[in-house]
Amino acid sequence: MNELNTKNSEKGILQLRQVLEKSLEAVNQEIISRLNKSIPLISDIGKHLINASGKRLRPLLTLAMAAQLNDYSKNPILLAAAVEFIHTATLLHDDVVDESNLRRGKKTANIIWGNEFSILAGDFLFAQSFELMVETKSIKALSSLASASCKITQGEFQQMQIANKPETSQEDYFEVIGKKTAELFGASCKSGIIVAGGNIKQQKAAYGYGFNLGLAFQIIDDLMDFNNLPNKMGKNLGDDFKLGKTTLPVILAWQKSNPREKKFWIKTLKELNQEDDDFNNAIDIFNKYNIFNECKKKTEEYISMSIKSLDELPNREINNHLINLANESIERSK
Amino acid sequence: MNELNTKNSEKGILQLRQVLEKSLEAVNQEIISRLNKSIPLISDIGKHLINASGKRLRPLLTLAMAAQLNDYSKNPILLAAAVEFIHTATLLHDDVVDESNLRRGKKTANIIWGNEFSILAGDFLFAQSFELMVETKSIKALSSLASASCKITQGEFQQMQIANKPETSQEDYFEVIGKKTAELFGASCKSGIIVAGGNIKQQKAAYGYGFNLGLAFQIIDDLMDFNNLPNKMGKNLGDDFKLGKTTLPVILAWQKSNPREKKFWIKTLKELNQEDDDFNNAIDIFNKYNIFNECKKKTEEYISMSIKSLDELPNREINNHLINLANESIERSK
Repeated sequence: MNELNTKNSEKGILQLRQVLEKSLEAVNQEIISRLNKSIPLISDIGKHLINASGKRLRPLLTLAMAAQLNDYSKNPILLAAAVEFIHTATLLHDDVVDESNLRRGKKTANIIWGNEFSILAGDFLFAQSFELMVETKSIKALSSLASASCKITQGEFQQMQIANKPETSQEDYFEVIGKKTAELFGASCKSGIIVAGGNIKQQKAAYGYGFNLGLAFQIIDDLMDFNNLPNKMGKNLGDDFKLGKTTLPVILAWQKSNPREKKFWIKTLKELNQEDDDFNNAIDIFNKYNIFNECKKKTEEYISMSIKSLDELPNREINNHLINLANESIERSK
Repeated sequence: MNELNTKNSEKGILQLRQVLEKSLEAVNQEIISRLNKSIPLISDIGKHLINASGKRLRPLLTLAMAAQLNDYSKNPILLAAAVEFIHTATLLHDDVVDESNLRRGKKTANIIWGNEFSILAGDFLFAQSFELMVETKSIKALSSLASASCKITQGEFQQMQIANKPETSQEDYFEVIGKKTAELFGASCKSGIIVAGGNIKQQKAAYGYGFNLGLAFQIIDDLMDFNNLPNKMGKNLGDDFKLGKTTLPVILAWQKSNPREKKFWIKTLKELNQEDDDFNNAIDIFNKYNIFNECKKKTEEYISMSIKSLDELPNREINNHLINLANESIERSK
């Protein structure tokens, strides 16, 4: 991917960031000030993770949806900070649960500070997110994000239950990623438009944009484990494979595999009996059945549903940026 | 302690339970129904811990405060269930952080299901507690419990920071137990009276009752580690001592210890170099300086502040039960 392409593939997010620059800066200030008010160690752990990510994708969506109705006030900023705290809390706990050691190219908090502090820091950020939401006095926005938070943990549970099961149905897989990833994208968008006074139709549209975008993002994240894509998440290559995680490429490959290949998946993913070459052998099977392309098609379907949802939302400029942002995720997967 | 005393020492809580029987039953139903609606494994973990405790002390306080203003409606019931979920979530994470294996006389969830599921189940219960609170539509009650939740994790952090430091000041100790234990007692009471329409004076009074009662309860919990009290919590005796936790008896003993005894505390609690007899040696030092009595006096002070707060609350019958409940905690420590 040359420089021009890289720029193109980030046009939407950069445009949105420009339009929402002031609000985004206020979100960053809010995040830092809440962390500084807590005790030093929590603050360190929070900053380690939050500073590592320049993207602020979920808060950006919250702000963008409020901007749909010209709301640039304090409330969307508080919600956007809350959304980032919820997301960060789940990452902290995920890394403990998965025993990860690398995220976004940096050592994970559990490696630096230990599991105990990672668990407690996650709890703090989660509780703090509700304090931020309470300040908006919007029960409806709170409800949307509380419900998403519940679903995230349910999704994480179900993800553990389908682990090491390449025979998992696509339906079960999509239920899992819907809950663990897409719900927070959906609620980030929905809560933004709720707090700005959007009607039910607009709330559904905002949720639809976020939820479908979230599904697409998770499929792309699955693909990144096999280095099929520029790895911007800074994860270790093959981490999911090593843990025997049940991701979309694995499910699709299992369905097409011949008996010999099924034995390979059973050995590597169910029994976690992996040899040096097995990661490459897995990729060979994916290539044989054109699995990566099939995943990309799925991504395109969700992106197109995501973009369709924007029809109900009023601000043409914001919509254009959101369309670009969504399309870029497909470009990233090409 | 003879049978009569045992009965006497539970009069307040039994009376309250009788008066609030219907509401308490509705809280249990609410808890079970929320757990059943989640995925089976979460439900199992939640029930394991929630069923193990017959007391429901915190939800009982929420209901009692709402009953002060004759509110026996659905809202206090939802809040009471939320309070129990928050409490249970913190226990699940505590047991992972402390690597405990026994709670309330039963194997801990982390031992049965593993750390991963305990972390996720705690997250689920915590998120679910906010869904329950949202249903009351009371931002003020939500605010009180969100703030307590933040303080609980801050307190847990600070508790880890004072661990293995018997030289900790009483001030720092009381800040820790205030946050990690007493805040939730305070908020359980305060949110109950908020949702029933109590005024600011009544809210402060309810919080004061709960917060001071919570401090007394934590001191009693500290004492239980040394078997100075009938151990109703089902914890392993000497668990805190083994981890070098900084509890009130330790702090008071350190302050009075001679150089030889200080060396003992350094060896056992700072360096965690403990021999078979050291637990009994610690108790000998406590007895030498009459430490247990000093702790009990502190408990009495907080109980008396707790009871004093009730002056501002209107329902004489409920107040009498709450006074009995508070006094019983002292009786338990005699």
